[in-house]
Amino acid sequence: MKVLWIFAHPERRSLNASLRDAGIRALDELGHEHRESDLYAMNWNPVVDRADFGLDPAARLLVGPDSEQAYLCGELSDDIRAEQEKIKWADTVVLQFPLWWAGPPAILKGWFDRVFVKGFAFGVSGDDGRTLRYGEGKLAGRRAMAVVSVGAREASLGPRGVNGDIGELLFPLHHGTLWYAGISAVPPLVVYGADRATGTEYVEYSTELTTRLASLDTTPPIPFRYQNHGDYDENLELKPDRAPGRAGLGVHLAP
Amino acid sequence: MKVLWIFAHPERRSLNASLRDAGIRALDELGHEHRESDLYAMNWNPVVDRADFGLDPAARLLVGPDSEQAYLCGELSDDIRAEQEKIKWADTVVLQFPLWWAGPPAILKGWFDRVFVKGFAFGVSGDDGRTLRYGEGKLAGRRAMAVVSVGAREASLGPRGVNGDIGELLFPLHHGTLWYAGISAVPPLVVYGADRATGTEYVEYSTELTTRLASLDTTPPIPFRYQNHGDYDENLELKPDRAPGRAGLGVHLAP
Repeated sequence: MKVLWIFAHPERRSLNASLRDAGIRALDELGHEHRESDLYAMNWNPVVDRADFGLDPAARLLVGPDSEQAYLCGELSDDIRAEQEKIKWADTVVLQFPLWWAGPPAILKGWFDRVFVKGFAFGVSGDDGRTLRYGEGKLAGRRAMAVVSVGAREASLGPRGVNGDIGELLFPLHHGTLWYAGISAVPPLVVYGADRATGTEYVEYSTELTTRLASLDTTPPIPFRYQNHGDYDENLELKPDRAPGRAGLGVHLAP
Repeated sequence: MKVLWIFAHPERRSLNASLRDAGIRALDELGHEHRESDLYAMNWNPVVDRADFGLDPAARLLVGPDSEQAYLCGELSDDIRAEQEKIKWADTVVLQFPLWWAGPPAILKGWFDRVFVKGFAFGVSGDDGRTLRYGEGKLAGRRAMAVVSVGAREASLGPRGVNGDIGELLFPLHHGTLWYAGISAVPPLVVYGADRATGTEYVEYSTELTTRLASLDTTPPIPFRYQNHGDYDENLELKPDRAPGRAGLGVHLAP
C-alpha cells in the first residue's frame, strides 16, 4: 500500500500521537510505503479564502467556480497542491483525529474544505455525461480508514446511545466527503474513553491498530450505495423498492 | 430577543451575506437587539492550540483539563473570552453558513472547538451530582437557528435523498453540539440550489427568513430527548421501551 497518514491532534505526547507512531512502525514492518500530513506540525491553514485561488482582492469570490479554475490552471496555493499530490500518490488514506463536538477538529475539516476542490475531488462527468460522485470520480479506487479517539464510553456511542451512533456521526466524513469523492471507507477504529485510557488499554488499541493496518487492503469497506448504479431515481432519491418504507442515513447502505 | 448572529461565509457580496443583511434589518424592525460574529471579517482562528490556554510551551497539552482550568482562572485567550461574553449576553443564536462537505466550514467548526470549553459549555454537574448535558447545562434556556445554504436541490437532501437527510447531517451541530450544551435548536432554514438562485428565489428566501425571525422566540424546537429526564439508562443508552426496536439518530427525538 501507499498510505497517506493525516494526523490532526495538537500534542505529540498524546495517546493519539503514540498510536500514530505505532501505526507508522507497523506500516514499515509490513513493507508499505507511507507519507504524512501532521496538520498541527505543518501549521495547516484550514480556512478557505480568496488567497487559495490567486484571486484579485477586489473580485467577488465564488468558491466552486474559482477553486475549479485555479485547480485547472495550476494556480491553487502551494500548500493545497502539495496535499493534492499526496492524495494522488496514495492508494490508502488514514485519518486520525480526536472527535470534538461530534466531528473532526476544524484543522481537519478545513483540510477537506481546501484540498478537495472542484475538478480534483468532484465535479467531473463520465462518458455518459452523468456527474461522477458517491463511489465514482477521479479519486475512486482509493480506500480510507478513520482512527478516532472519543472521551465517551462505547455504549453511549452505540445504535441507541445518547451521543448518537458513531457510524452515523461519521456519515458526513465517510459518505458526504470520502464516498462523494469516490473513496471507500472501511469501518473506523474507535478509541473509547480516551481521556481515561490505561497502559493496558493503550497496548490493546495499539495491537488492534496494527491488526487493522495489516488487513486494510482487503477489509470490506462500508457498503454505501453508488449514486449511478441504479439505486437512485432522477431526483437522486432512493427508489421505493430499495429499503422500502424506511428513511434516515441507514438507507444509503446497500444490503 | 438578544440575538448573536454568527456568519461564516468568505464573501460579503454573496447570497448568504445579502440574507444576513436582510435578517439583521428584520431584527431591527422587530425591535430585537443583536450582536454579530462575522468570522471571516474577524479573521477568526479556528484551531485549538496551547496558546488558547496560556500554557507553557513545554507542557503537555490536555485539551479538556487545560481549557477548563484556563476558563476558571480567566486565562483563555482574549478572542475566546469575547465570544463567550456574546453567548452569555444572547438568548438566541443564529448560525449562518454554507454547507461544505456535509458540515459547517472549518472556521465555524473551530468557533465551537475553541469557544465551547469545559466549564463554560459542558462539564458541569447538577445538585444531584449528575453531569448536565443534552438539554441541561449553564447555557440552557437559549435557542438557536441554523441558516444553511446548499448547492444541491431539496429532494437529494430529503429523508431518502442521496446526500442524506439534511436534518441528520446537521445532527452533530444541533444535537452533538448545541443540545449537548443545553441550547435548543429550531428547525433550520435551508437555502437549496444556492449557486443557481434567481432574484425571485432570493426574495422568497429573504421573506422566509424574515418570517422565521419574527416567530423565532415561539417556534417549537427540535424535540431532542433530555439525557437526565428518564429516557436513558445508566449506560446512557435509550431504554428499551422508548422507540422500541429502532436505532439510528432518529431515536433521539421525543415522540
